[in-house]
Amino acid sequence: MPELRKDPVNNRWVIIATERAKRPSDFKSKGEKEKGEKGFCPFCEGNESKTPPEILSYRKQGTLPDTPGWWLRVVPNKYPALQIEGALEKKGMGMFDTVTGTGAHEVIIETPEHELDFDSLEIGRVEETLWAYRDRSIDLNRDPRFEYILIFKNHGVSAGASLEHPHSQLIATPIVPSSVREEMDGALQYFKYKDRCVFCDIIREEKDSNERVIMENEDFIAIAPFASRFAFECWILPKIHDSTFPDITRHEVMALAEVLGGMLKKMSKTLGNPPFNYMLHTAPCKMDANQLKHYHWHIELIPRLTDVAGFEWGSGVFINPTPPEEAAKYLREEGK
Amino acid sequence: MPELRKDPVNNRWVIIATERAKRPSDFKSKGEKEKGEKGFCPFCEGNESKTPPEILSYRKQGTLPDTPGWWLRVVPNKYPALQIEGALEKKGMGMFDTVTGTGAHEVIIETPEHELDFDSLEIGRVEETLWAYRDRSIDLNRDPRFEYILIFKNHGVSAGASLEHPHSQLIATPIVPSSVREEMDGALQYFKYKDRCVFCDIIREEKDSNERVIMENEDFIAIAPFASRFAFECWILPKIHDSTFPDITRHEVMALAEVLGGMLKKMSKTLGNPPFNYMLHTAPCKMDANQLKHYHWHIELIPRLTDVAGFEWGSGVFINPTPPEEAAKYLREEGK
Repeated sequence: MPELRKDPVNNRWVIIATERAKRPSDFKSKGEKEKGEKGFCPFCEGNESKTPPEILSYRKQGTLPDTPGWWLRVVPNKYPALQIEGALEKKGMGMFDTVTGTGAHEVIIETPEHELDFDSLEIGRVEETLWAYRDRSIDLNRDPRFEYILIFKNHGVSAGASLEHPHSQLIATPIVPSSVREEMDGALQYFKYKDRCVFCDIIREEKDSNERVIMENEDFIAIAPFASRFAFECWILPKIHDSTFPDITRHEVMALAEVLGGMLKKMSKTLGNPPFNYMLHTAPCKMDANQLKHYHWHIELIPRLTDVAGFEWGSGVFINPTPPEEAAKYLREEGK
Repeated sequence: MPELRKDPVNNRWVIIATERAKRPSDFKSKGEKEKGEKGFCPFCEGNESKTPPEILSYRKQGTLPDTPGWWLRVVPNKYPALQIEGALEKKGMGMFDTVTGTGAHEVIIETPEHELDFDSLEIGRVEETLWAYRDRSIDLNRDPRFEYILIFKNHGVSAGASLEHPHSQLIATPIVPSSVREEMDGALQYFKYKDRCVFCDIIREEKDSNERVIMENEDFIAIAPFASRFAFECWILPKIHDSTFPDITRHEVMALAEVLGGMLKKMSKTLGNPPFNYMLHTAPCKMDANQLKHYHWHIELIPRLTDVAGFEWGSGVFINPTPPEEAAKYLREEGK
């Protein structure tokens, strides 16, 4: 069983994946992975039996689960970081704190087509992917063992994608992750001082100065954040205050697909299909949405262009060689 | 002039290196760098004129600065993240906060020999390197513009080293970095509750259980921390409570060199000369050491074996495939 452990100094949680304990020899051939996987792909249509049984699929009427006919499938991760079975147990080990590694780890296979790149990204595929994010979030939110559901995408080997077939992932955790907690705490502090949502203020400020806005439609805005950690980092936010993603309406799904799909295309064209990650930050599962006047859900999109090295790991301070104003200008002009 | 910017949500600082603004085309050839640099090395003996003038050197009596005859040199980084010239100025930009990018960025060239690997690491070289860390820390501590001095080492291309010649770096910042602040806050919270230093308690607990101790001598202990973020992560701590590294005595330098050098050799042998970073965490410049009963300086050593991907960037929670107990066993037994 995997285990969550809390660092007693800074209260940072880690997942110790005890079930797939890696020996030194497992790491030595890392260089070879850079080539990327070729050959058999368990996510391609026709290979449904090579994944664990599907949890959700959007498929042609009359086709059976785990057979062809789908345009989107959600399956459990075959090598999960956390395990869905088992009760949640918190216990101390001497001075240290642990929680059983109970959670969900799912893969959202975004399309049956292996070779779809982002230049040819269809808005419909992004919409369907967003619906899957929503449907799985609502379902997992009902499980009382989970405190948070993090949806993310790794694209490209150096961004951590072990399979190149287009997919996103979702991990439900029995704790609120520290990055989310820091955001919530900071946003609450701001709200207490100003009586306004910090994200709403950012949107207003960015629209006024118009220096870091990349694109927008009626419902969503994409900006290069003022304190971008990474070159060409981008945040996508709903323009109207909203703290929880799964509340998203049909109209908003379409609007978000336009901005997210548009940003991925812009990034791919401007930077030559770079490796990237995106992460969806929404309020923790058990927080009453009515209480969250201070928190505003959003997507953070980070192309992986620069190395993260000793200074960043030691300080938490990132060195960004591209001012966000420059990044926004390049991305804004792409495709015009 | 580079600029520090604070994220208004989580109060995280970033350095925007405005002087070396990167355009999209600068990133596209990233793959090529993986090969590592060959040919001319500005850090080799005889090439002293290819670095900025030296700040400090340990060299044969009678030899002149910026000429051969040295066994360790400290020079300004040719492409500094922060700039030493200029007054420190804090200002607001609308709702955002900035600080001028005033700071120091120095390179500690650990040896004139380019090809020294860690299997043949001499303890004397580690000692001299530690003396340089101390001497530069004491000197920079006097500059009232600086709040923190972070010493770190990047080894290997994928750990962020752009030159393979053995070197460490130092960055002095006009703010206390967030990772350090989080550690200090957590340690203070613990101290208020228990009236003991959390690091001292960790050392006691680790010695008692003896599951995660890798090596120790009279003065220093190396452990695989209970909540290791990375596979084969290791912390080195002074056994007697001490909050500031630059106070280190001659005896302690020798003892630390033994443990740090020993750990680097063990890591190199166990994991096949992996890319790694280490970072020295000490108290901020302007804190009176007498006040810091709660903080304990230490070195964090992280081999770079696994990818950091969307889940980690989005959550701050790391997935570690190697339980620290296993890592400690492998490292402890190496070289026995």
